[in-house]
Amino acid sequence: MVIQIDLNKRQERILSIVKENGPITGEQIAEKLNLTRATLRPDLAILTMAGYLDARPRVGYFFTGKTGSQLLSESLKKIYVRDYQSIPVVISENVSVYDAIVTMFLEDVGTLFVVDKDSLLVGVLSRKDLLRASIGKQELTALPVNIIMTRMPNITVCSRDELLIDAAKKLIEKQIDALPIVKETEKGQEIVGRLTKTSITKAFVGLAYQE
Amino acid sequence: MVIQIDLNKRQERILSIVKENGPITGEQIAEKLNLTRATLRPDLAILTMAGYLDARPRVGYFFTGKTGSQLLSESLKKIYVRDYQSIPVVISENVSVYDAIVTMFLEDVGTLFVVDKDSLLVGVLSRKDLLRASIGKQELTALPVNIIMTRMPNITVCSRDELLIDAAKKLIEKQIDALPIVKETEKGQEIVGRLTKTSITKAFVGLAYQE
Repeated sequence: MVIQIDLNKRQERILSIVKENGPITGEQIAEKLNLTRATLRPDLAILTMAGYLDARPRVGYFFTGKTGSQLLSESLKKIYVRDYQSIPVVISENVSVYDAIVTMFLEDVGTLFVVDKDSLLVGVLSRKDLLRASIGKQELTALPVNIIMTRMPNITVCSRDELLIDAAKKLIEKQIDALPIVKETEKGQEIVGRLTKTSITKAFVGLAYQE
Repeated sequence: MVIQIDLNKRQERILSIVKENGPITGEQIAEKLNLTRATLRPDLAILTMAGYLDARPRVGYFFTGKTGSQLLSESLKKIYVRDYQSIPVVISENVSVYDAIVTMFLEDVGTLFVVDKDSLLVGVLSRKDLLRASIGKQELTALPVNIIMTRMPNITVCSRDELLIDAAKKLIEKQIDALPIVKETEKGQEIVGRLTKTSITKAFVGLAYQE
């Protein structure tokens, strides 16, 4: 469960006391603030629960070193690729570019994955690749997709059990719209799903509107 | 500041007691749980700080009706379109489809905005629109973009001061890749930015990696 809190001034002061002096007992903190241990108890509970402080019996409170954003990132670290994956649309490597474009419209996707005769991943085709080919000089019905597709080792993949945040980072860093979700087998990579910027946008909306 | 907490069993019990009996004083809650008021103080502080409970002097604690995800959404309600906007790429409405495709590649964007002679928004062109046109029978250099573009009232827009989460919702609901960010003027809509699924993906990554 992720919540929004704003630390009050006393809690900020407790944090900085523990940062400087920890491990430190609750009584020692109370002394430094001229307050009773009882008065401080709720603040210490909040700071501990929020993950800023940790407490060890007979030792006292110490600073975990975690910042607010690290604590948020911990909650994002519970969302996986499998939670937001889509169904992959695959075509064979000898299909024409024209047929690939038609498939893209029929299936209403922005990226097609290309497979060999064993159904293993060999290429990726984006709308951009197809648009580039379509303004070229070649006859689209005679041009096979394996001439224009992105191929290994330039394909970036992800797995179902990868964190969504890591897959999102790949999309941004590689400047691509989609990742094939693959399962590694002895023969090669089987395509088990599709993860796109639409998936990430849905996850973002989901963070706010989920129940 | 957003944090991750897990309510413990006692806190869950307090929540359900207040839901059923609120407004209720701390002492009455303590009585129902066979605990002292002092023991409960940290739990009540956490539940109040987290926004689940609210307290009124001389009345007691009551349930705010907010769920964990509503409380998270409040933190997302601090991210605006202006925080993640990109520079818009605009073309004139009498440009050819061929030139629009070339512009799209030169500028490396997935969506172009079309403006009239007063620089006001009149259309949107996606990669999908251009790809569809490119496999048609017409000569791309002779076909003006205003024949194939999406036009008003079918254009979905957003403003710089809109919440990013609301803009993300529009992208998902309308199944589009980008929104023009506009400023309303007396003459019409001026284009001031571009918001895409890439922007949202960056925001998602930013949630986890920001400092």
